[in-house]
Amino acid sequence: MLSAAYESLDYDTCVNSAWLDEERTMGYKYVVKKDVARWLVVLLTAVLTALVACVIDMAIECLSGYKYTWLKQYTDYGVATNLMIIPFLLWAAMNIGPTLLAAFLGSYIEPVAAGSGIPQVKCYLNGVKVPRVVRIKTLVSKALGVIMSVLGGLAVGKEGPMIHSGAVIAAGVSQGKTTSFKHDFGFFEYFREDHEKRDFVSAGAAAGVAAAFGAPVGGVLFSLEEGASFWNQGLTWRVFFGAMMSTFTLNLVLSAYNGFPGKLNYNGLLNFGKFDDLTYEIWEFIPFLLMGVMGGLLGALYNHINLKLTAFRMRYIQKPWQKIIEAAVVAFVTAVVAFLMMYLIHDCRAADTQSSEYPIQMFCGIGEENAAAAIWFQTPERSVRSLFHDTSDSYHWSTIGVFFVCYFFLACWTYGLGIPAGLFIPTLLCGAAWGRLVGMLLCLFFPDQKWVDEGKYALVGAGAMLGGVVRMTLSLTVILMECVGNITFGLPLMIVLMVAKWVGDFFNEGIYDIHIQMQGVPIMAWDAPPLSNNIYASEVMNRPVVTLKSVERVGHIVNILKANTYNGFPVVDSIPTSENVCYFKSFGTLRGVILRSQLTVLLKHKIFNENAEVWQNSKVDIHLFRISYPRYFTLDEVDLNPEDMNCTVDLRPFYNPSPYSVVTCTALPRIFNLFRALGLRHLIVVNDNNEVVGMVTRKDLVKYRIWKHRGQMGLEELVIYNNVS
Amino acid sequence: MLSAAYESLDYDTCVNSAWLDEERTMGYKYVVKKDVARWLVVLLTAVLTALVACVIDMAIECLSGYKYTWLKQYTDYGVATNLMIIPFLLWAAMNIGPTLLAAFLGSYIEPVAAGSGIPQVKCYLNGVKVPRVVRIKTLVSKALGVIMSVLGGLAVGKEGPMIHSGAVIAAGVSQGKTTSFKHDFGFFEYFREDHEKRDFVSAGAAAGVAAAFGAPVGGVLFSLEEGASFWNQGLTWRVFFGAMMSTFTLNLVLSAYNGFPGKLNYNGLLNFGKFDDLTYEIWEFIPFLLMGVMGGLLGALYNHINLKLTAFRMRYIQKPWQKIIEAAVVAFVTAVVAFLMMYLIHDCRAADTQSSEYPIQMFCGIGEENAAAAIWFQTPERSVRSLFHDTSDSYHWSTIGVFFVCYFFLACWTYGLGIPAGLFIPTLLCGAAWGRLVGMLLCLFFPDQKWVDEGKYALVGAGAMLGGVVRMTLSLTVILMECVGNITFGLPLMIVLMVAKWVGDFFNEGIYDIHIQMQGVPIMAWDAPPLSNNIYASEVMNRPVVTLKSVERVGHIVNILKANTYNGFPVVDSIPTSENVCYFKSFGTLRGVILRSQLTVLLKHKIFNENAEVWQNSKVDIHLFRISYPRYFTLDEVDLNPEDMNCTVDLRPFYNPSPYSVVTCTALPRIFNLFRALGLRHLIVVNDNNEVVGMVTRKDLVKYRIWKHRGQMGLEELVIYNNVS
Repeated sequence: MLSAAYESLDYDTCVNSAWLDEERTMGYKYVVKKDVARWLVVLLTAVLTALVACVIDMAIECLSGYKYTWLKQYTDYGVATNLMIIPFLLWAAMNIGPTLLAAFLGSYIEPVAAGSGIPQVKCYLNGVKVPRVVRIKTLVSKALGVIMSVLGGLAVGKEGPMIHSGAVIAAGVSQGKTTSFKHDFGFFEYFREDHEKRDFVSAGAAAGVAAAFGAPVGGVLFSLEEGASFWNQGLTWRVFFGAMMSTFTLNLVLSAYNGFPGKLNYNGLLNFGKFDDLTYEIWEFIPFLLMGVMGGLLGALYNHINLKLTAFRMRYIQKPWQKIIEAAVVAFVTAVVAFLMMYLIHDCRAADTQSSEYPIQMFCGIGEENAAAAIWFQTPERSVRSLFHDTSDSYHWSTIGVFFVCYFFLACWTYGLGIPAGLFIPTLLCGAAWGRLVGMLLCLFFPDQKWVDEGKYALVGAGAMLGGVVRMTLSLTVILMECVGNITFGLPLMIVLMVAKWVGDFFNEGIYDIHIQMQGVPIMAWDAPPLSNNIYASEVMNRPVVTLKSVERVGHIVNILKANTYNGFPVVDSIPTSENVCYFKSFGTLRGVILRSQLTVLLKHKIFNENAEVWQNSKVDIHLFRISYPRYFTLDEVDLNPEDMNCTVDLRPFYNPSPYSVVTCTALPRIFNLFRALGLRHLIVVNDNNEVVGMVTRKDLVKYRIWKHRGQMGLEELVIYNNVS
Repeated sequence: MLSAAYESLDYDTCVNSAWLDEERTMGYKYVVKKDVARWLVVLLTAVLTALVACVIDMAIECLSGYKYTWLKQYTDYGVATNLMIIPFLLWAAMNIGPTLLAAFLGSYIEPVAAGSGIPQVKCYLNGVKVPRVVRIKTLVSKALGVIMSVLGGLAVGKEGPMIHSGAVIAAGVSQGKTTSFKHDFGFFEYFREDHEKRDFVSAGAAAGVAAAFGAPVGGVLFSLEEGASFWNQGLTWRVFFGAMMSTFTLNLVLSAYNGFPGKLNYNGLLNFGKFDDLTYEIWEFIPFLLMGVMGGLLGALYNHINLKLTAFRMRYIQKPWQKIIEAAVVAFVTAVVAFLMMYLIHDCRAADTQSSEYPIQMFCGIGEENAAAAIWFQTPERSVRSLFHDTSDSYHWSTIGVFFVCYFFLACWTYGLGIPAGLFIPTLLCGAAWGRLVGMLLCLFFPDQKWVDEGKYALVGAGAMLGGVVRMTLSLTVILMECVGNITFGLPLMIVLMVAKWVGDFFNEGIYDIHIQMQGVPIMAWDAPPLSNNIYASEVMNRPVVTLKSVERVGHIVNILKANTYNGFPVVDSIPTSENVCYFKSFGTLRGVILRSQLTVLLKHKIFNENAEVWQNSKVDIHLFRISYPRYFTLDEVDLNPEDMNCTVDLRPFYNPSPYSVVTCTALPRIFNLFRALGLRHLIVVNDNNEVVGMVTRKDLVKYRIWKHRGQMGLEELVIYNNVS
């Protein structure tokens, strides 16, 4: 099912007289100025994104430090007094408290801030207008919320929200105004169109990835994988520049924060620590491949469970208070699981083998500490690092096994809660756990081999699991390579990710795509469905078409705008030719297309023929249309007198005189390519005499979708529903 | 000026009845099979590309080994007997010999194999058909030629030709037939169209980069930077897979060749050696930035000299024998320069500081060796490695200074000779030389600082120089990062490359673009020229248009095909409407477009209405059109009897019924976007009644070009000339 609630972005520019007038007055200096402004916006975006990421990073580190120090004291005290209920209750409270705050932000304050944000950014880059996704309020809710989520000890990461933050910042900076605070700074007005804004958002998303993982190249590739249809070289460079500057700023601030100011290649800046010597032998590709398969299977299972859970949530957990309660329950269960593991598993290790910052002795001997507690007594990101880098006798296999099973289901339950929370870290942690188990198993069989390194297998497992869940390959490989600071290990990572994707795709789709589809977002695939050349424009198009004449009565325009929700109206010559020549009813010869937004601006400013001398002197230019972007007037905001209704409007200077159009016998893939490559919002279908017979929009195309499951494949037609809730 | 000799590739598919017939008979199994075949082709391409690269690598290493061992013996003998003329003559002969062979291959055997191949691949990916560029003969000439060029001691590299090799192999494997050997293997017939072939060529180019530099991610980004307008996710993954498999195969073979079988992360596989600890301080950005400026200036100078030289060559050195003589002269001069440097510069160093494999004592004391000889007595690639990694007292500054000046001009003179030869390595070597000089200078000012590392500055200089010459940023940064196996140094490299590009772009264009423009290749820019919205389709289009009717007499078709060289003909309804309604003469209502290649196939197989029962039974399908791709019949190959001339052909099942068209008032940028995004070859211009009034081809668009030099900017209109030579 497709929701009718989502509108499409319009990547196409409307070359009307107003636009041409502006272009004529501006010289090449204007071009250069605009170009410099673009670089400036990207730089600003990158720096701000990095700073937001720093704030999130430092807040989490600092607050978690307090939390675990305090917990440790009480746990040690509890062990000493044999009164374990006190640290348990304290832990539960310290999980539930921040989680409630996060859930409040994600449910009451700004629901679109819930989740990882990557699906929303993906939709936006794909050309779907997701309401409120790039607002400052969203950014604040997201940033605060994710700090609280991580602090709440949930199985969440901060990376997805950082990427979303980058997108919001880019959208904000490039527009030079904020809707949340209702302030227009007045600069960058020429970037106020979907085309430019979307380019900046892709740069912002890349800067977000770069800040989240310290992976500038990965960031560029992420933007490319998610929004590549509108890519070009100039944009690529700006995106790369932004990603690099973002990493630079982040490293600069964090290296100072960590006490090594200016030491930009300080290893502590790598999220998951540096692997210095990731060597591998050729025969290791066999376990790698098997781990890829495993990752694909586990990922498909994860996605399947989450799909069912999401369906359940959409039906039964709709109200904000219900979401808050669910989040609290998850926080509590997480505390219970963690505490029970620590309490029941008696896995004692020498204190110096553990890398945990808050080692807990529990019931172990002196100089020993509890390995289960070591995994839990830190943020998930640190746990990933521990599993990657701890020495080979840091954990008993059963500790890791139990941890993996518990964490897998916890992570699966957590994703989709009404809190701002990312998915990358918990998935990596699950994968690192079973990957380390594989490493231990190999250790058992090949005890004295140099190539057996548990940390290496943890990394492979983490990659396999993440690949199985999110089904990205190129960007993910590079992100992982950059995260661990190692290039030579790229090949095994790529193979593992690719196998995991293939195996996973056999069962279902990536987690982000599942969530996007559940929301009914009309997202466009990369290619038209195969074997769809026998579907013609005449079958795809919407009819009847509401058209306007070149010179139209105001009352008629108002009625049309009131009567339907279309966003584009073909402008036609009034006299349709005789019916008998064409198969489809003609609505007149196509002259151009005018948008609802343009019509409302014309009405609002009363640009009628009857008072032409007034507005022609005051120079109606493109500025008038830009200033109200992106939230144009609704009809209610346009106040017209009864006498205005009889005025006429000459649309000719304002409509787009050369809209893209296709004939009725055009096959679906050709229409699809036009939409995909040019980012269209409307496409006019004409007959052989250039008379309008129909109109195609994004949803008309997206409803034809190919499904592929378990080796089967077919074409399905989705239903478009009006979201009434 | 634009040459009319270059035809455009056709990325658009012709959805006619024959195509639909095929699609109807094929189910989703066919889709899956085609998809599997695509992966297979990419895998095969990658492996073969890597093997070719291995052969080139090993041949160069082996033959150079013989050459320098022999030369060393004679030099040592010459020093002992004080008869230096013998080693000099030997050196000159051993330079000139292989160079002559390379020049013979690049001038007589296959002229398109001369040069680096990157401009040709770039043109192909851009959508220009460069004749013979993806033939097996080209591949063989290129591979043999580049071995000889490097062996000839010239200032050349093997990387560009490896990339070209990858492109050729991809085109060959994907088509399942060879034109050079006139053999059709019969498989992969469904890939015989420009669309598919070009996708494979981009994968092949990426595999080539991956094999040349051991840089898989860089390879993907290279393909992206050069051919990104037709990018999509599925293709990206295949390209990435190919690049990874190519690196893997190369590393597998070369690690075995070097005596470490299976050790895939063996450092010797990195072209320029591994930098383990590339640390940098923040204030080092100041020298880095200055070096970027320097690189831009030197690159612009290099390009300027080479531009003048190329113009000179195009005028005076046209004949193959002239080219051979020029190559021999350059080889001789190179030998002279090298010998003189070694003879005259008395820079003696302790033997253990030098990394040269063939150390020459010359007139130095015992246990010492000549530093100038150390740079020259190896392949340029090894010299780069030496400059990157030799200890700080390996060279006197004057040795490197003289070497830089000589090599700069030699490299500049060498590029553009009629030999297969790449540009990357010599440019890197120049840059490494002056970069090391900068490092030495800093050493002088800050003698005891840990951060001063001559090798690091050599790397930065190499990057700056290469960036200043070729003006790539994203892919080059990643290639350099992968080449030296270090991620953290990515940021300085990017900054340096970007500054070098900006500074260089102020003066002229990248070397590849210069050569492409000198050839008059109609290459499309990334964006339409700015401020060109006031240029309309009616000004851009070609008129009059040669049109055909739906049912046409054979004699008329033959006459039309003979009378002009157009490749696409609009099919129209016969009766033009009255003249007075439109500004431009109408050629009838548009029905579709038929290609020259389709017409010749119809004529060749006599698919006339008069013998319809014959060919309709034998099932005329898409196979008939594919089998003759890409070299369709010429009119001479079609033998028609006089009575055939009066037959008629029904074009309706064969033409494309829904060609892309625009109205006369469409602005240039909109047309440009259509061409760029959809890879069009023809675009029909119609009036408001869908009647054909003109036609736009690639050259009509490309002739509007923006120039930017020294802060100035403007629009120029190129002249299209018919290449008569």
